[in-house]
Amino acid sequence: MTLLVKGGTVVNADYTRQADVLIEGGTVAAVGTGLDVPAGTEVIDAGGAYVMPGGIDPHTHMELPFMGTVASEDFFSGTTAGAVGGTTTIIDFVIPSPQQDILEAYHTWRGWAEKAATDYSFHVAITWWDESVREAMGTLTRDFGVNSFKHFMAYKGAIMCDDEVLVNSFTRAGELGALCTVHAENGELVAHLQNKLISMGITGPEGHPQSRPSAVEGEAADRAIRIAQVLNVPLYIVHNSCIESLQAITRARNDGQRVFGEVLAGHLLVDDAVYRSTDWDYAAHHVMSPPFRPKEHQAALWRGLQSGMLQTTATDHCCFCTPQKRMGHNNFTRIPNGTGGVEDRMHVLWHHGVNTGRLTPSEFVAITSANAAKIFNIYPRKGVIAPGSDADIVIWDPSRERTISKDTHHQKIDFNIFEGMTVRGINTVTIANGQVVWKDGDIRTVRGAGRYVDRPTFPSYFDAVRRVAEVTAPSAVERMGAAG
Amino acid sequence: MTLLVKGGTVVNADYTRQADVLIEGGTVAAVGTGLDVPAGTEVIDAGGAYVMPGGIDPHTHMELPFMGTVASEDFFSGTTAGAVGGTTTIIDFVIPSPQQDILEAYHTWRGWAEKAATDYSFHVAITWWDESVREAMGTLTRDFGVNSFKHFMAYKGAIMCDDEVLVNSFTRAGELGALCTVHAENGELVAHLQNKLISMGITGPEGHPQSRPSAVEGEAADRAIRIAQVLNVPLYIVHNSCIESLQAITRARNDGQRVFGEVLAGHLLVDDAVYRSTDWDYAAHHVMSPPFRPKEHQAALWRGLQSGMLQTTATDHCCFCTPQKRMGHNNFTRIPNGTGGVEDRMHVLWHHGVNTGRLTPSEFVAITSANAAKIFNIYPRKGVIAPGSDADIVIWDPSRERTISKDTHHQKIDFNIFEGMTVRGINTVTIANGQVVWKDGDIRTVRGAGRYVDRPTFPSYFDAVRRVAEVTAPSAVERMGAAG
Amino acid sequence: MTLLVKGGTVVNADYTRQADVLIEGGTVAAVGTGLDVPAGTEVIDAGGAYVMPGGIDPHTHMELPFMGTVASEDFFSGTTAGAVGGTTTIIDFVIPSPQQDILEAYHTWRGWAEKAATDYSFHVAITWWDESVREAMGTLTRDFGVNSFKHFMAYKGAIMCDDEVLVNSFTRAGELGALCTVHAENGELVAHLQNKLISMGITGPEGHPQSRPSAVEGEAADRAIRIAQVLNVPLYIVHNSCIESLQAITRARNDGQRVFGEVLAGHLLVDDAVYRSTDWDYAAHHVMSPPFRPKEHQAALWRGLQSGMLQTTATDHCCFCTPQKRMGHNNFTRIPNGTGGVEDRMHVLWHHGVNTGRLTPSEFVAITSANAAKIFNIYPRKGVIAPGSDADIVIWDPSRERTISKDTHHQKIDFNIFEGMTVRGINTVTIANGQVVWKDGDIRTVRGAGRYVDRPTFPSYFDAVRRVAEVTAPSAVERMGAAG
Amino acid sequence: MTLLVKGGTVVNADYTRQADVLIEGGTVAAVGTGLDVPAGTEVIDAGGAYVMPGGIDPHTHMELPFMGTVASEDFFSGTTAGAVGGTTTIIDFVIPSPQQDILEAYHTWRGWAEKAATDYSFHVAITWWDESVREAMGTLTRDFGVNSFKHFMAYKGAIMCDDEVLVNSFTRAGELGALCTVHAENGELVAHLQNKLISMGITGPEGHPQSRPSAVEGEAADRAIRIAQVLNVPLYIVHNSCIESLQAITRARNDGQRVFGEVLAGHLLVDDAVYRSTDWDYAAHHVMSPPFRPKEHQAALWRGLQSGMLQTTATDHCCFCTPQKRMGHNNFTRIPNGTGGVEDRMHVLWHHGVNTGRLTPSEFVAITSANAAKIFNIYPRKGVIAPGSDADIVIWDPSRERTISKDTHHQKIDFNIFEGMTVRGINTVTIANGQVVWKDGDIRTVRGAGRYVDRPTFPSYFDAVRRVAEVTAPSAVERMGAAG
Repeated sequence: MTLLVKGGTVVNADYTRQADVLIEGGTVAAVGTGLDVPAGTEVIDAGGAYVMPGGIDPHTHMELPFMGTVASEDFFSGTTAGAVGGTTTIIDFVIPSPQQDILEAYHTWRGWAEKAATDYSFHVAITWWDESVREAMGTLTRDFGVNSFKHFMAYKGAIMCDDEVLVNSFTRAGELGALCTVHAENGELVAHLQNKLISMGITGPEGHPQSRPSAVEGEAADRAIRIAQVLNVPLYIVHNSCIESLQAITRARNDGQRVFGEVLAGHLLVDDAVYRSTDWDYAAHHVMSPPFRPKEHQAALWRGLQSGMLQTTATDHCCFCTPQKRMGHNNFTRIPNGTGGVEDRMHVLWHHGVNTGRLTPSEFVAITSANAAKIFNIYPRKGVIAPGSDADIVIWDPSRERTISKDTHHQKIDFNIFEGMTVRGINTVTIANGQVVWKDGDIRTVRGAGRYVDRPTFPSYFDAVRRVAEVTAPSAVERMGAAG
Repeated sequence: MTLLVKGGTVVNADYTRQADVLIEGGTVAAVGTGLDVPAGTEVIDAGGAYVMPGGIDPHTHMELPFMGTVASEDFFSGTTAGAVGGTTTIIDFVIPSPQQDILEAYHTWRGWAEKAATDYSFHVAITWWDESVREAMGTLTRDFGVNSFKHFMAYKGAIMCDDEVLVNSFTRAGELGALCTVHAENGELVAHLQNKLISMGITGPEGHPQSRPSAVEGEAADRAIRIAQVLNVPLYIVHNSCIESLQAITRARNDGQRVFGEVLAGHLLVDDAVYRSTDWDYAAHHVMSPPFRPKEHQAALWRGLQSGMLQTTATDHCCFCTPQKRMGHNNFTRIPNGTGGVEDRMHVLWHHGVNTGRLTPSEFVAITSANAAKIFNIYPRKGVIAPGSDADIVIWDPSRERTISKDTHHQKIDFNIFEGMTVRGINTVTIANGQVVWKDGDIRTVRGAGRYVDRPTFPSYFDAVRRVAEVTAPSAVERMGAAG
Repeated sequence: MTLLVKGGTVVNADYTRQADVLIEGGTVAAVGTGLDVPAGTEVIDAGGAYVMPGGIDPHTHMELPFMGTVASEDFFSGTTAGAVGGTTTIIDFVIPSPQQDILEAYHTWRGWAEKAATDYSFHVAITWWDESVREAMGTLTRDFGVNSFKHFMAYKGAIMCDDEVLVNSFTRAGELGALCTVHAENGELVAHLQNKLISMGITGPEGHPQSRPSAVEGEAADRAIRIAQVLNVPLYIVHNSCIESLQAITRARNDGQRVFGEVLAGHLLVDDAVYRSTDWDYAAHHVMSPPFRPKEHQAALWRGLQSGMLQTTATDHCCFCTPQKRMGHNNFTRIPNGTGGVEDRMHVLWHHGVNTGRLTPSEFVAITSANAAKIFNIYPRKGVIAPGSDADIVIWDPSRERTISKDTHHQKIDFNIFEGMTVRGINTVTIANGQVVWKDGDIRTVRGAGRYVDRPTFPSYFDAVRRVAEVTAPSAVERMGAAG
Repeated sequence: MTLLVKGGTVVNADYTRQADVLIEGGTVAAVGTGLDVPAGTEVIDAGGAYVMPGGIDPHTHMELPFMGTVASEDFFSGTTAGAVGGTTTIIDFVIPSPQQDILEAYHTWRGWAEKAATDYSFHVAITWWDESVREAMGTLTRDFGVNSFKHFMAYKGAIMCDDEVLVNSFTRAGELGALCTVHAENGELVAHLQNKLISMGITGPEGHPQSRPSAVEGEAADRAIRIAQVLNVPLYIVHNSCIESLQAITRARNDGQRVFGEVLAGHLLVDDAVYRSTDWDYAAHHVMSPPFRPKEHQAALWRGLQSGMLQTTATDHCCFCTPQKRMGHNNFTRIPNGTGGVEDRMHVLWHHGVNTGRLTPSEFVAITSANAAKIFNIYPRKGVIAPGSDADIVIWDPSRERTISKDTHHQKIDFNIFEGMTVRGINTVTIANGQVVWKDGDIRTVRGAGRYVDRPTFPSYFDAVRRVAEVTAPSAVERMGAAG
């Protein structure tokens, strides 16, 4: 089947122009004007609209077993919600339990993901260390298309990595050409504060942000960056929520280090007033880590996107419904951490990013799609509309408005952190792998249509890292008759 | 005529891949493997080499009348030297004298440039102000393809703009969708220091850097940035040479302002020890403004390129031979300011940028070509190898070495600031507008083959600027029965 | 007459201890316990209270002729209000009109000030330049106890200094050992914005802050700092109101430059919401320059005091009553700039500084008194309670509360920017020159009792400045047979 | 016995003046001119000289058992060498082995120190944690005059604290009003790099700095600061040697946090070229932690002193002679870490600090004496020349010169890192506790004359810390019928 997206403005990260897009099978065949179009081609009118690469959400947790329950959104429902919102690829996480065989965990997640409607890939978390883990990292990169490993610096007593594990895993990833990523919060301090708050009788959701002040995130971000610097490996910090971690990244990048930063749509737009709601459920639905922050942090994060110090946007989509949240009714530390967003990310970023002049449309494509594709080494298969690329495309009407609500969204969660927000700029059509999966309110996703995306190791920035290693290799002094 | 560049690695700013490049007429017809190649196509072997967009030098002064003499390099010799070094487009400057009709000056420079061997364009300097200047700015943008205006904050009593001129011109440029650029040095302080030094009997070239400390550049950079911020116009600062101006740019970009920074190859690699040579000619040949700086500034400027705070590299190519330099033999303030470099920029940047791991090959393309094309709004005609782009291409052998010398360079100047530097990574073939103009030591440039490049106004980043203006427009308070 | 302040906690900038203070005549005779007290000594009970050096307000404008009217507070009423609030010394400003003889202006102000109730001194503004000004600066420092000169970078067309005047005056002050101070706002941009706003029909007080965004202050602060750096003179920036100027100072101090920063009590506590009041009088009463700023600036300014990047606090006390403010009823640019505060500074700083834990009591003394005395070279005569120091002392009850109001204050102005603020920590007794001038609600100031305070040149930090000059003096290269 | 120091310039941290100093017994009786001097008073002529408070070295290790040997300098020889150089108080360290009873260790060190010639005090290191340690901290502060606890973040497998110990100890110190101090280096990374270097065959002293890059110090400094911030305790970071830790401190102080920084004389003046000497002994004598750094770090550290971001100077005096250093002849990790300096600190700081214009004489007193006295809460007993203060005084001739050498120094070590440095500004007389202990080349120290100095808890800055705790205490939300 061939498709022609006609009359729109094609927006890539490098530039924008009027052009048609011809799609044959699952890939883009041509971009331009006056294209040779085969007979029988279906034409989609994109007049007055932007035609952009489908979004990539590099941080989701579909059907994750966590804190004694399982995230309510599964790979099919979640990728469907994403497709509605213009996201056509997700990168989810395999999270082995400590001591669990990592390959076993990997295969478990692969099995769950088979129902996905759009393409997906996996980061793999390193939650413990021995020789078998080191081996498994090699196997995953060599045989299973994994090029990124995740490390939790929080969750003491569970999946937290101490510095020794970080040093071992970062070193190993560097050998393999895989990217290290971290969840940056100092777990020791979080545990201390949780205990203190609970002992003071502060058990409601308002205790959550008080147990995770931005200083604990800033500390961990700086620590991970320094470890990566000393070991000469690139680093990616997930869900930066605060000034402190942004400053750490900014400092490092200005010193020439290869550090990447991700920010969640929620952290850009929601502030910590939510935790002081007298509605327990409302407050609890915002319990996620890192928590939402005072307003000055949102302003700073936007500037981080503008300056290029933050490169990607994500959602950490991890849905828990009200009954699940209530598991922590007497103790905020037991409220399952997470919320939704995969459906809304593109819309809220367009509205608050492009309509305000913070971002150009090309920059919007960069931070919602192209940069993630480059960093995780699936560009130009993903992240760009160009001949040969996967036909993952959204058609965006900049003049239409919509109001976000849990009552109309397609995410499997009975809450929406953007409830009531009216956005201008709407995704009218989503094409995934050359198939129209969303059009003007009509959902056409197919269970299992999504493919696992292999991500090769040694993305381009590793070239530079390796040259740095050569230039800065340790060296000895030649001494005659030294003291010894 | 068609050309096929075969077997190389095509490097664009966004990614790198094995591909052939088919050139038909002056433009790129196709990029890929297994291309359909017409009979009779000339094949150029690029095996083992990088195939990259030709360099853009956004800051040259060919045959400039300045300080009582005329720069020794003309538009033909200069663009030829550029072509040898891999640069296929220059953006030079029209510099009217105060009170001179700006359009007249523009046409004078256009006349001089007709002899150019490769493509060229012009920034136009605003050196004074009245209603006619305001009008002429409109004419130049509307009818003559000018989208950038230059302002000198130094050279008191000559072409220096005071704040009033800056405010007027920046405001006007903003209306027209043209980019303001500045030479940032506080001319009042420079004049004060020059007088002081001369009165102390310090008349040699060593007086030059002492009269232009980096603080005077930092001051002016910050001032221009603040003026641009208040007037809500984008800004481009030419030849940043020091930590101070880099910090000013970094601060502004981190605050979300659209400020761009250029750095010269010379400022990245030459330090101020040159001025203390006991060889007067040697020292005098390094007299340019801003001057070369202590070593810590070079390290910082490289980091600025790595972090993306500086986007473009240039040369300020403005050649004066020894007899010209000697015009200032008793007074350093009369030494014509300037030196060469258009031929060497790409090589020294590759060697010190890519071979050291500071930059990936794609980043090298960004800072030598693609970014300038985007900022000055000639992308994707220039700055990328893609179907439809101008066929300005270099073939780069990363394994070959060469030693730079005034004895072997093609620039019309009897000195080279990179004298004796051995670089690894050599431009073996230059194609300009689809013609081979340099191949393995053979120069084939043609006088007058270069074309004037129109640059349209309102580059993409103006969209964002305009939205910011809407969002932040001044507003009044409605008052009933106010005091009055 | 002798006085004994008994049983209190003496707080100096360096430390705090339980001690009595014996006062003989106008000076402190002894500090300690078990003092030898002459018979007939009056005893003042300071039990439970802090005994601190009287405040120094280094920035007031009593009875200033400005913008077509005269400030309503005169030297007697103003110093009386200060005494009530715990301030026992002011440094006011002589502001010659352009072309006015500076000495003449100086004597005019001296005449006005003879009515002062407490000690006072004068900064002298440099508002224009020729040889006579240069001469007069020498006379003032040599014969009249002036060691600081003020420069306005705003008020274009009136008292604004351009860079040439700044360079001349800073150079001259450096020779004389006098401190340069600046009002840092870019007057060119202010004038441009005023014209633009008025032309848009924005004529109310809300136009005032819109015409003076913090960027114009940051620009001027940075410029003054750079000029001072290049000329190697110390610099003092008055009334820093925003993040931008604080950043400029912080940068300079971290680079080892001798830059001092003052902040007004008002800028620490009042935000720009006041300008959007629908009550014109209310808004207009807040018109001063720099204007009040968004809340994030207040937080930053406090941090500047805590870190030591800002050293002094002042008020810019310059009172205009409602009818005066209404002179600008149709045009905000004609609203006389200024407000009161000399009476309230110490109280609001204690409440918001010490009670919150931002400052220790010793730090409070440093920023309200000792630092100003050191910078303006009247320490230890002023700024400390020590044998030999002037007996300017306040007795402070940290447990009592008071609510600030125009209805109860002693300032000659029908408005108070701190109206309704309840502060804990109250000045119960003020002693000036050994006389009790305020005690428990009883005002005992005497017209003319204040003395003019000579301030000698070459404060201690000039030693360092002069050594830097020696170390960094320009130098020539010796060349044989140079080109010439 | 009474002494009169006559005719000098008394320099305190707050100001400088011509005055005589009368000493009675061990304390200062009077400071001024025309003092009442008892008959029989010995007069010391200080004409032309500065009279300053004796130096306080807050970081020494006399006779420390470390790395299999014992530091060669004992408490008598070390305090004598200090006295010669103008230092009259040291604060040394009690360092229990892990699991050792802390009080036992304390008493051991107290015993060793009884031979000291001048006054001394002790920080106590926390090297492990259980309830008994918590108890002992209370005992030490309550009964033994200890108000500061030290934590090593390096030396993995030996005395390193992990985050859990830091959190426990910082919390406890905060309750007790004692100051936490840290040696900031990431021990995990150091261990990793040591192993790597040794495995590469890099066994010489040049391996030492390569195993401890400045990034590991910056990381640990930032981590300690963040932990202190979250726990709301003040923090003191010892021997900051690099830009990275200075930046961490600067950031924190600019955010209003109470963080103090110390710098060693050696780190201000010696760079890392020493490790590449082909003379093994020479290189090994510079092995200390943190190591000496590239030159840009020295420049930054001086600026840190100038800006007030660093407050104290010390030496980490810990002497090992050549045979001791040779214990690591085959393995740099076994070279005992440490070098001398207690005798030289004041001289090198005066020469490079005051003579260059970086510091005024008052600032010199602040960073060599007064600030340490304030931070460690022994001011004004120490750190100032004022009535009632201990008579610890140096008489400093600013015009005399001396060349530092191991051949003439009084330290018990056969090496001097300042060998051959000629300094201008010489200590001619040292008075300790009212006794002349050094005069014009004559050493008069007495074994055991030094006294242990109790340091009370809750120094003044704790007031502020406690008020912050009140203002920012965690709080709960009141909810009716919450989900639970």
